[in-house]
Formats: sequence, structure tokens, C-alpha cells
Amino acid sequence: MYKNEARQPHLRQQQQQHPSSDFSLKTTKQAAMSPKYKIYFCGSIRAGRGDADLYGRITEMLGKYGTILTPFVANKATTAMGNSEGEAKTDKEIYDRDVRLLKECDAVVAEVTQPSLGVGYEIGRANAMGKKILCLYRPQPDKLLSAMIRGAEVEGKFLTRDYKEEDLPDLFDHFFNKVVCKVERRNSLNWQSYEPM
Amino acid sequence: MYKNEARQPHLRQQQQQHPSSDFSLKTTKQAAMSPKYKIYFCGSIRAGRGDADLYGRITEMLGKYGTILTPFVANKATTAMGNSEGEAKTDKEIYDRDVRLLKECDAVVAEVTQPSLGVGYEIGRANAMGKKILCLYRPQPDKLLSAMIRGAEVEGKFLTRDYKEEDLPDLFDHFFNKVVCKVERRNSLNWQSYEPM
Repeated sequence: MYKNEARQPHLRQQQQQHPSSDFSLKTTKQAAMSPKYKIYFCGSIRAGRGDADLYGRITEMLGKYGTILTPFVANKATTAMGNSEGEAKTDKEIYDRDVRLLKECDAVVAEVTQPSLGVGYEIGRANAMGKKILCLYRPQPDKLLSAMIRGAEVEGKFLTRDYKEEDLPDLFDHFFNKVVCKVERRNSLNWQSYEPM
Repeated sequence: MYKNEARQPHLRQQQQQHPSSDFSLKTTKQAAMSPKYKIYFCGSIRAGRGDADLYGRITEMLGKYGTILTPFVANKATTAMGNSEGEAKTDKEIYDRDVRLLKECDAVVAEVTQPSLGVGYEIGRANAMGKKILCLYRPQPDKLLSAMIRGAEVEGKFLTRDYKEEDLPDLFDHFFNKVVCKVERRNSLNWQSYEPM
């Protein structure tokens, strides 16, 4: 346990938060096996809900790596006409909440097959914030992914991958264990002075 | 004329470039009436070209206020399958050019009726850069504009307007004469290193 703590100093904080020794031991073991990242998942809402079931399966897989900050994206009750987009009621409340969650997250995973202004906007803001980003695209014969997504690739920082659903476990293992794990723990970032590009 | 020069010091440079006094006088009058902003126009390319003709009419109207940095968006030869997106050939070249132009522009005008990842990305990056942004949306009965666009409204900085085509002249007059005109003039730009597309 001490060895894990040395490698993952954030575990100590979790233990302090949960003084019950049984609980903290369990939490520590789980965290050592699967670091709990804060994951911002992006998918189309108002541009169309055709992939909502897929978003559900993706966020279920992502649960292995951390907490989904945006569960309303995969919620089947969320419709293109704006019903049930979480607790936020107005467009401004949705916008303010989502930008706040983007700032908080450790990583962004975006399903980008359905063209969507909101998903594009979130990826643009996240990239300007220096977040680690994985974009997932299902190729189609008569369509092309936007050059503003495909062309933004930067090794170790911004990844876009064509995929079939069975590829996702390996893609996520690579992204979280080889890319996101290199995120500087946010404890050391000075958010008061940090400015997006 | 001297009075105009004092208010708009960039006019002097234009006169020096055109030593013919008649020509310089004409140029001065035109410039005094319509400051030449660098305008980044956003519209859907790979998400669909259904509005390409409209983009052409919009960019023609915008010519009154300055130079369109992204003429390929309104070019009818530009297709959703990636033909003729300007000089850039690869997705990375397109991306790098467009981010460079975003940084250079004085204002962003985006037609956002057709959901598009690229348009969303550009608006997100432009907003993070502090650019003045006007988003134009044609309301439709069974659709809603993304909350990440509608909810981003900030007075004097980020405007989203529902519109019909006949509203555009007034919307553009307001945007450029009341909002963009407050941008600090980019006198410091090095025009020798500036590369038009």
C-alpha cells in the first residue's frame, strides 16, 4: 500500500477523505488498479440522437477508467429537442456547466461520427485548454471526418481513431494507460494563472 | 483627409503605397467609410454543402466590411468529400492554415444552421482566443441550435442571432460598427510575412 502511495500520491488524499479503514483499503486497491480519471464524454445531442445507445455502451466501458462528468450525453431520456440535458435548464446553464466540467476533466473522449456543433465546440475549447483528447470515428463510404478534427492530431495529446466497436477496449487501454496517465496531476497546476492558448 | 488620417493611421500607409494623388484620395475615402477587417467566415464543408449558395451571398455581403480569409467555404467547387478546400492538400495542412487564419482575423462570422464539427471547433478556438464572434442561425421547427453556441452569448463579444436572409445587412452593420469596431486595430501585423490563401 505504501508502495502504491509513493507511485500515486493522490491515493493518500482519498484515504484521508474516508477515515473508515476498511473502506479506505478497498478504495486504495481499486484506485491502484484503475486510476480514477475525470472523463468528459462528448456526443451529439441536438444534432441527432441516432448514436445514443452506442454512447451508453461507450460510457459503460469508460467507467473502468474513471467518472463520466457528462452522463446526460448517453442518457436515453436526453432528446435532440433539449429534454433532460442534466440539471441545467437554460442554454446558458448548460453552456456554463459544460465549460466548467471541461476545465475540471482529466481527459476528453468524443464520439465524432455524427457532425455536431456542440461536440466540435467542446473539442476546440478542450484543445485550447491543453486537455488530452481521444476522438472516435466510424468511417462511412460517402462521408469524411472534418479536417479540423482529423488534422488536429498531435502525438501524445490529441488522437483521432477510426474504429469499430470491438476495437474500443484496446483504444481506451492505450489512451488512458499511455496518454492520459502522463497528465500532470492537477494538484500542481495553478488554475488561477493558467490561461488557454 | 488629415482628420481621417489622425483617426485611422493605417490610411497613411495606403497613400504611400499608391503615390498617384487621385488614386490615394479615392482609396482614403473608401477606407474611411468601410474599415477593412480580416473576417474568418465559417460554414459547413464536410458535414454537407446544402447552404453553399447562401454562404456565397453572405461572403459577398461581408466584402463591404473587409477581406474574407476563408473564401473556399463559399466556393461552389468545394465539396463535402474534400475537393478544393483552398491550397491546403492534407487535413493537417487545412487545420494548420485555418488555425493560423483564426489567430489573424479581426472577427468571426459563422453560419451555424447546418451542424458541423469543423464550425463548432473553429468557434470554440476563436472564443478561447477572445475573438469577436457572430453566429447566424435559421430557426427550424423540429431542430434546436446547440446550447454550446446559443448559451455562449456574451454581450459585445459573442453574439448568436436567429435570422432571415433579409435581416443580414442590419445584423452585419450592427456587428461590425458596434461590436468589431471596438477591437484593437492590428497595426502591429507584419504584412510582409502575411500569406494570403
